[in-house]
Amino acid sequence: MIYEYISVKVFCIITSRAGREERRSAVRVTRRVCNLYLTSLHEQRCRPLTSDSKHGSSMASNSSSSNAQHRLRIISGHLQKRPEDESTGITAQECKAETPKSTPSRLTPVPKRRQEIMKWNGWGYSDSRFFFNKIGQAEFTGKRYRLSGLILPSLKDWFEGTFGANLQHKSPATPTLNLSAVAPPNLNEPFIEELKAVGVAMSHDPEDRVFRAHGHCLHEIFALREGRIGRVPDMVVWPSCHKDVEKIVELACKHNTCLIPYGGGTSVSSALECPHEETRSIVSLDTSQMNRILWIDEKNLTAHVEAGIIGQDLERQLNESGYCTGHEPDSMEFSSLGGWVATRASGMKKNIYGNIEDLVVHIKMVTPRGVIEKSCLGPRMSTGPDIHHFILGSEGTLGVVTEVTMKIRPIPEYQKYGSVVFPNFQQGVACLREVARQRCAPASIRLMDNEQFQFGHALKPQVSSIFTSFLDGLKKFYITKFKGFDPHHLCVATLLFEGDRGKVLQHEKQVYDIAAKFGGLAAGEDNGQRGYMLTFVIAYLRDLGMDYYVIGESFETSVPWDRVLDLCRNVKERIVLECKERGVQFPPLSTCRVTQTYDAGACVYFYFAFNYRGLSDPVHVYEQVEHAAREEILANGGSLSHHHGVGKLRKEWMKESVSVVGLGMLKSVKEYIDPKNIFGNRNLL
Amino acid sequence: MIYEYISVKVFCIITSRAGREERRSAVRVTRRVCNLYLTSLHEQRCRPLTSDSKHGSSMASNSSSSNAQHRLRIISGHLQKRPEDESTGITAQECKAETPKSTPSRLTPVPKRRQEIMKWNGWGYSDSRFFFNKIGQAEFTGKRYRLSGLILPSLKDWFEGTFGANLQHKSPATPTLNLSAVAPPNLNEPFIEELKAVGVAMSHDPEDRVFRAHGHCLHEIFALREGRIGRVPDMVVWPSCHKDVEKIVELACKHNTCLIPYGGGTSVSSALECPHEETRSIVSLDTSQMNRILWIDEKNLTAHVEAGIIGQDLERQLNESGYCTGHEPDSMEFSSLGGWVATRASGMKKNIYGNIEDLVVHIKMVTPRGVIEKSCLGPRMSTGPDIHHFILGSEGTLGVVTEVTMKIRPIPEYQKYGSVVFPNFQQGVACLREVARQRCAPASIRLMDNEQFQFGHALKPQVSSIFTSFLDGLKKFYITKFKGFDPHHLCVATLLFEGDRGKVLQHEKQVYDIAAKFGGLAAGEDNGQRGYMLTFVIAYLRDLGMDYYVIGESFETSVPWDRVLDLCRNVKERIVLECKERGVQFPPLSTCRVTQTYDAGACVYFYFAFNYRGLSDPVHVYEQVEHAAREEILANGGSLSHHHGVGKLRKEWMKESVSVVGLGMLKSVKEYIDPKNIFGNRNLL
Repeated sequence: MIYEYISVKVFCIITSRAGREERRSAVRVTRRVCNLYLTSLHEQRCRPLTSDSKHGSSMASNSSSSNAQHRLRIISGHLQKRPEDESTGITAQECKAETPKSTPSRLTPVPKRRQEIMKWNGWGYSDSRFFFNKIGQAEFTGKRYRLSGLILPSLKDWFEGTFGANLQHKSPATPTLNLSAVAPPNLNEPFIEELKAVGVAMSHDPEDRVFRAHGHCLHEIFALREGRIGRVPDMVVWPSCHKDVEKIVELACKHNTCLIPYGGGTSVSSALECPHEETRSIVSLDTSQMNRILWIDEKNLTAHVEAGIIGQDLERQLNESGYCTGHEPDSMEFSSLGGWVATRASGMKKNIYGNIEDLVVHIKMVTPRGVIEKSCLGPRMSTGPDIHHFILGSEGTLGVVTEVTMKIRPIPEYQKYGSVVFPNFQQGVACLREVARQRCAPASIRLMDNEQFQFGHALKPQVSSIFTSFLDGLKKFYITKFKGFDPHHLCVATLLFEGDRGKVLQHEKQVYDIAAKFGGLAAGEDNGQRGYMLTFVIAYLRDLGMDYYVIGESFETSVPWDRVLDLCRNVKERIVLECKERGVQFPPLSTCRVTQTYDAGACVYFYFAFNYRGLSDPVHVYEQVEHAAREEILANGGSLSHHHGVGKLRKEWMKESVSVVGLGMLKSVKEYIDPKNIFGNRNLL
Repeated sequence: MIYEYISVKVFCIITSRAGREERRSAVRVTRRVCNLYLTSLHEQRCRPLTSDSKHGSSMASNSSSSNAQHRLRIISGHLQKRPEDESTGITAQECKAETPKSTPSRLTPVPKRRQEIMKWNGWGYSDSRFFFNKIGQAEFTGKRYRLSGLILPSLKDWFEGTFGANLQHKSPATPTLNLSAVAPPNLNEPFIEELKAVGVAMSHDPEDRVFRAHGHCLHEIFALREGRIGRVPDMVVWPSCHKDVEKIVELACKHNTCLIPYGGGTSVSSALECPHEETRSIVSLDTSQMNRILWIDEKNLTAHVEAGIIGQDLERQLNESGYCTGHEPDSMEFSSLGGWVATRASGMKKNIYGNIEDLVVHIKMVTPRGVIEKSCLGPRMSTGPDIHHFILGSEGTLGVVTEVTMKIRPIPEYQKYGSVVFPNFQQGVACLREVARQRCAPASIRLMDNEQFQFGHALKPQVSSIFTSFLDGLKKFYITKFKGFDPHHLCVATLLFEGDRGKVLQHEKQVYDIAAKFGGLAAGEDNGQRGYMLTFVIAYLRDLGMDYYVIGESFETSVPWDRVLDLCRNVKERIVLECKERGVQFPPLSTCRVTQTYDAGACVYFYFAFNYRGLSDPVHVYEQVEHAAREEILANGGSLSHHHGVGKLRKEWMKESVSVVGLGMLKSVKEYIDPKNIFGNRNLL
């Protein structure tokens, strides 16, 4: 007893120290040092993207002539709608400048030729993928991720055990894109002629077209892996700025081409799929080159940004000035600001920073009717129904979002991860509910079920240190044997706290105290940190599965608190049942986690995957099961989607979700804004 | 020096004790005791409006048949869209029951015959008004308010000094409504016949009609005081429930009558004014009898409420169960839930509870096309553009809001008022901006300018205690002589903190520390409390002013932080200038306060009033000055409205505010929802 007690004490001390070491990764130290340095510089010099003189509102003197001058300057500044400052050299009019005048932060990290760095038939970067090496260990290639270059010794066993799969049974993808399988483009020559005169970059190269013909729904990737190419855009255009977009839309209306806006291409709602019935020339309007931060306003803590910017670039550039938006969807490496607006995106740390609708102060969108935007940057208004909310969630059916003013925050002083082990899922959910009730949720709090906990273990990299391995064993011993948690029922919540250091520690204590009331046991920072780190590599795993007859998808919902448990249990059971009925040979992976908490409910995220070996039409089986799962979600009180959106995948439930009259309102807006259906992706309605 | 130091020390101690005593008003003690009692009862018994058994989601057992039963119960519960519970006896189907089965909380505090308790030509209750007694002291009649029965000795001097008014120069209102001045009703007989069969209460009594013909814009009240009656509704109907409303709307469409929804009648945007050009029969749809809380859901912390409920009644009834919405607009004594939804209302404590768009989880509206509502109570969704935001702010142009599910919170454990004196307005604004930047705003924080500070002093009741009077003098001495604040520049911020006691005290310290950095000096709880208490009597003051040739109005805006000071200064100066140009004899009262803080800006509230003696058309002068003030607001970057809305008063700026395309979208929705313009109040568009 004393021995166990001492061992545990020692283990806790060592663990907390080891946690701190793990935390001091090179990236973090570098980041912190840079922030401190930048903060000190901040007091002294003018930043490249902003200037105090821009706003000019120092205390007005009492003399009436300078009052008048001052007032004129204020008013004209407002009417311009944009603080101009010659010294920065960044103005939107210069968007076609050959040589950007600004600093390296104006890199275009997303090349026009996406194929240079992205996979054509899978998720993410070409240089990053999972594979099983000769001795059956999983590895992750490349150098971009923390997991890169590491070995994951447990993944094979978990994979084969969970799916009844066998590494001998391979279902590899078609390695290269067969360009001759791509239909010749249906080009609208008059449109192209006029567009050339404007100077907008364009292409009808088959590879460029295929890259923009899809998002990342299972059926889309499966088809690509089989080399099946469906309807693809006939050409791609790359506007550089808002004015380019205005011209493109004007010409599209004039010549009746179909425009499909393309941001990061990460849609999981079939939103990017080209409608087969579309006979007009389909033009993919790729926003990736329209990606500048036009200005940062430190007085109001806002930034005005072009909508083609990608999440990771937006944060990286703002970080250089000591700020962030804090908007971190799981897709942020690739998804765009315009895409977030169009789909009502949600980010991991919404508890601090808000969802996209909380983050935007001003939106500008180009539509066939013209540009739509408010004339004011006020924080909150009552000027009839909020037109921002006609744009948010319009999923590319009304126009192209070109510029957005977003709220920014100073980079938090301090970050701390954490994790809690619960005896079972019910206790974990009850804890999250109580945390929400007390309105003390951390930046992020996520509760995974037992299956995901085991899945997380399978993704643990091989540790070079016997010491860490010993600690893991000790932890496992402590939790299961000493504390009596059943490894087949226990669940883990991962936590992230951010902010002022003193407040974070206080907040942390409050949350762990609540967790203890629900049988929760603090399980260290490294488990928390690893959970979040895995977020960005999970999507690569599906490609690995698809190499071995395993297909799967994630889907999500939002639901009131009192239905969370029933919904989770019923949906998971329904998935298992439906798979069985359709001849799936081995029980599927059917797992969920609670990823967001709100006052009145939560967001629940499901993973569903199965071994399709022996099935003649695996994608069809998958679609039927997913359909049944969504019916089960709706029957149990969950919503059609928390943040993935509707696209074409979930259109059939729109009438039920928003009522006949609600759907009619959306259609009436569409018919007014875009009577010729120029923005013809056929999403939503 | 030592003497002063000791005096100040003693003064502070005494003040803080006096503060505490003042705080222990009968109302507060009673409330606290009741809350404690109810909380203890809560654990033991079933509440009249809710029941744990309603939700029935205890931990599911493992047997599959009970699983199936359980699942069926969950699913059918969801499909009903409403947890049914026979034991409470409250169901919507019973809305026409003669004898309500429930407890006294189902009182209808707003009578159909509003004239029984409300003024016909001024603000609020008939029994409550300001007047000057024989010796020129202001008094407040009745027993409803803290101020009732008290004498305000300083008001006369302030009034005469500020407006150049004279109590000898009276401009009394027409004492009684001349019913013969009311045009005979234009009744739509077929409509009435069918409505009678339904059993909906109705009237075409001229007094009932006049009462619902107006809101509280200056021009509306001025006209009533002069006995001028314009276009009024031809009849009034009082639905009891959602089904009644469906029937009324159906019949209105069938027989082409014009429906104008009427909630609390507190509009200050001419929203309730009957369009003169309307030739059809105008039916005022008074929602005041459709006012029940249908259920409280303690698991999800939501309440489902009929939209005719008035703010004070909603809070009072929820308080009985230990809850609140926390939504406290200044109009809450009279304004309705449906009205808040229709106008995008904002409440004093939005920093904790959110504005109306944050509070609603589900809205049901009856439109000419049918009922519009989502099918899910999920906390946040991505199912296309959010249809709630097509309803919020629609200002009665699309239909009648009948039922709303709102978030509720436990009544806070602890409340504490406070106040801070700043040397000048700029310092105060800078402090509020910093509080917003640190995201540590109290439940409420409001900064008034120097004119409002002096106005506040004029409203101080006569103190019976020489002791308190002595303290006031000491405070004044301390602030002006000892600390050196200039009484013609100093400003006061009033604060309200709510929540867990320990957290409140910590929060309070943080805010006062920030205030100190901007030269702010804590000025005691009683100043804060009095500031908030005055909120509900301020509206009665205008009627007093109008008895002595003084007219005025409030108006508001929202504006980015960096423009707050310029906007405040420019708008106030513009008002003074415009009055002078139009022959107003004495400089006007032109004052403002910052009433809400946000991340990206603030809400600013203006009071504007002047002595119109000698002007031939005072209302016209008023309207021109108000128009110029709004132009000045817009030119300085402020919005058209933060929360009052647009109505008919601000329609002309809608195109500029939301763009031509934005306005077109709103019109397209209107044309779809209500092609015959049944909801013909002509607001917004």
